[in-house]
Amino acid sequence: MGQFLASELESLGAEVQQRPLGKQPGKEHLDLPPVIIARYGNDKSKRTILVYGHYDVQPALVEDGWATKPFELTIDDKGRMYGRGSTDDKGPVLGWLNAIEAHQKAGVDFPVNLLCCFEGMEEYGSEGLDDFINAEAKKFFKDADAVCISDNYWLGTEKPCLTYGLRGCNYYSVEIKGPGQDLHSGVFGGTAQEPMTDLMTILSKLVSTDGKILIPGINEMVAPLTEEEKKLYGPIAYTMDNLYESLGSETSIFNDKEKTLMARWRYPSLSIHGVEGAFSAPGAKTVIPAKVIGKFSIRTVPNMESSAVNEAVFKYIRSEFAKLNSKNSLDVYCQHDGKWWVASPSHWNFSAAAKAVKEVFGVEPDMTREGGSIPVTITFEQATGKNVLLLPMGSSTDAAHSINEKLDRRNYIEGTKLLGAYLHYVAEEPMTAS
Amino acid sequence: MGQFLASELESLGAEVQQRPLGKQPGKEHLDLPPVIIARYGNDKSKRTILVYGHYDVQPALVEDGWATKPFELTIDDKGRMYGRGSTDDKGPVLGWLNAIEAHQKAGVDFPVNLLCCFEGMEEYGSEGLDDFINAEAKKFFKDADAVCISDNYWLGTEKPCLTYGLRGCNYYSVEIKGPGQDLHSGVFGGTAQEPMTDLMTILSKLVSTDGKILIPGINEMVAPLTEEEKKLYGPIAYTMDNLYESLGSETSIFNDKEKTLMARWRYPSLSIHGVEGAFSAPGAKTVIPAKVIGKFSIRTVPNMESSAVNEAVFKYIRSEFAKLNSKNSLDVYCQHDGKWWVASPSHWNFSAAAKAVKEVFGVEPDMTREGGSIPVTITFEQATGKNVLLLPMGSSTDAAHSINEKLDRRNYIEGTKLLGAYLHYVAEEPMTAS
Repeated sequence: MGQFLASELESLGAEVQQRPLGKQPGKEHLDLPPVIIARYGNDKSKRTILVYGHYDVQPALVEDGWATKPFELTIDDKGRMYGRGSTDDKGPVLGWLNAIEAHQKAGVDFPVNLLCCFEGMEEYGSEGLDDFINAEAKKFFKDADAVCISDNYWLGTEKPCLTYGLRGCNYYSVEIKGPGQDLHSGVFGGTAQEPMTDLMTILSKLVSTDGKILIPGINEMVAPLTEEEKKLYGPIAYTMDNLYESLGSETSIFNDKEKTLMARWRYPSLSIHGVEGAFSAPGAKTVIPAKVIGKFSIRTVPNMESSAVNEAVFKYIRSEFAKLNSKNSLDVYCQHDGKWWVASPSHWNFSAAAKAVKEVFGVEPDMTREGGSIPVTITFEQATGKNVLLLPMGSSTDAAHSINEKLDRRNYIEGTKLLGAYLHYVAEEPMTAS
Repeated sequence: MGQFLASELESLGAEVQQRPLGKQPGKEHLDLPPVIIARYGNDKSKRTILVYGHYDVQPALVEDGWATKPFELTIDDKGRMYGRGSTDDKGPVLGWLNAIEAHQKAGVDFPVNLLCCFEGMEEYGSEGLDDFINAEAKKFFKDADAVCISDNYWLGTEKPCLTYGLRGCNYYSVEIKGPGQDLHSGVFGGTAQEPMTDLMTILSKLVSTDGKILIPGINEMVAPLTEEEKKLYGPIAYTMDNLYESLGSETSIFNDKEKTLMARWRYPSLSIHGVEGAFSAPGAKTVIPAKVIGKFSIRTVPNMESSAVNEAVFKYIRSEFAKLNSKNSLDVYCQHDGKWWVASPSHWNFSAAAKAVKEVFGVEPDMTREGGSIPVTITFEQATGKNVLLLPMGSSTDAAHSINEKLDRRNYIEGTKLLGAYLHYVAEEPMTAS
């Protein structure tokens, strides 16, 4: 996929490099996929915009419940383009390439110098990318005047948004093991302490049905809600019906818009993703798994520091496990973490994008934060010292990370126009702050 | 596998039938695998012994952690024959065939008429077999004087046993669902009630680390331990080291032999097997699963009635779920159940087997019960009205249902002799009771 992307960029006339990132930590036989970096245009009189995207995707199996083959693009009669990566993040990456191609075909001068940074490990914590960006900030990326990332989603389905904040994500594994190998529950049930029993107890003590995180110290780290911030939530174009539509159900925690948006943007959350090592197929298998690994993650917000979150998680889980007096053994560790991020939405980078939204869609964008994490955002901000804008293409119903991921044709075509228009306004915008 | 078995039996001169069992309930596009029934010998002056085995096996994937390919027999330098089904139950089934072949090659008259019933759905609750046995009890199986099943294991690794009791097994699914599809935990974490959160709470309330079943009413159904029964456990050739060796660890619930054997044979146990529908692969996937199915089973003992156990389980789980005040929905059901069984070990069927053990191994067998369930045992007893004997071939370290399942060459060869010797003693044994 990286090679395909590199060759597409080359055929558009960009200067392209495939940059290796070394081996995957802990899997020294595996090369990390290369970062594809490119420069299109080298005119000192123009602004230079650095854009980021990723060409890797979440796992997908037909057996997960996809209605179509996840790795074949399938377009239905409503213009919904189904396929893994359609909205996250192959569609937006192609949007940048389309914008270049459209200028060439229309014979219009490209308004900026474009720097591209497209990676292949975003869905696994952008392994290796931070060091690369830090190393290239004063080299390949040194001319960048601002950064633009198209890798998130509108709040609803009709109105575009500009995003100035993201939650972080700390992903944990809780590993409990005992027997030397999986056991037959008939032969050993009642005589062996079962790792799965202990794991269920630990995982049950992390979060309540209503989303309250039960780990002491976590909620205390959250920045208090000010009256000023509270006022921001009223005008946002969002309804509970928007949430119900994207959930596919009415099983929400809150019944009003403002609490829902705050829970998504400015409060932490904890989700239990699954168990590795236990029986997970359909049917009935009477196994006692010897080693099970529970997976959960915490979405983090200002002012939660990753190391303090880890410390609270490890301490709590070890203490809850100790209460069980189990002969099994416990290991708990952070698989990867990514910090939360909040930017200044009054920067010229944002003003330009707002004008582009108005031009293409005829409306003022919502100014939003996001519940998901794009850890690279903060890396770019810190490494380049420049403003970072999140300019989404897809809508809230795109089902990123789920089965039947899609991108609407309208979002793809108008979104491509939006990226192009943004580059034109960016070229014209007066300098406000770096 | 069924066809292979039928053709092997035919080539030995048995009269063989492959009998269809209809469709798999709930999966009407799937034929159940056939039952292979056979008659070898039809001499009215001889006793007729009905033997049962199964040619299906537990699931097995190299990725589960097998050291060899699970479906290729691999023999190491200690004579351990590795492969899925080697001990459960293909090895013992072949033992019966070997016994016939050995008589033919040695020119020795076969001492009994042999009836065979070999099924292909044992690992999925012997789907369809009960009706078949009940229907054939007075037809194909009508001449049977006793029944012998070789589908369990020695208590340790040196001394054979005869088994006169089994636990039953009720296998449950707890299904919790909410959203219309899997969700991205960044986008929806904190705003949606998560089925996995609810499921962890439910599964954590079933059993303690020390194996105590927490479902009210279950423990009260267990037949009290009498002084007489208690005395049976002392002489059994079994040590904690035997347990630790087969566990591959010292993570036992009890520290003494008698409590361990009682927990395995005469008390119920509850094991949590896994979760279907959640993330189960290695790595990190930030998904909120929309529908998750927890799987657990209860090993049952006298006097637990399956319907009463189901009632207690359903009532408790529904009541615990109601306490959560969740908007998600719950379904709990029994996937399959099999009753416990206890037989009379003073019957001539057992005396003959004890003499065979003495002949082949030079020792008196342990008289044991088993923790696992072989539901067909009770079906044969009830349908034929005859004594049923469990005569195991494999040892306690065979890892049935686990990775690296094996059968020792000694157990296979001496075990084949044991099955043959048993048939000779059965032919000579005075009639004691039907």
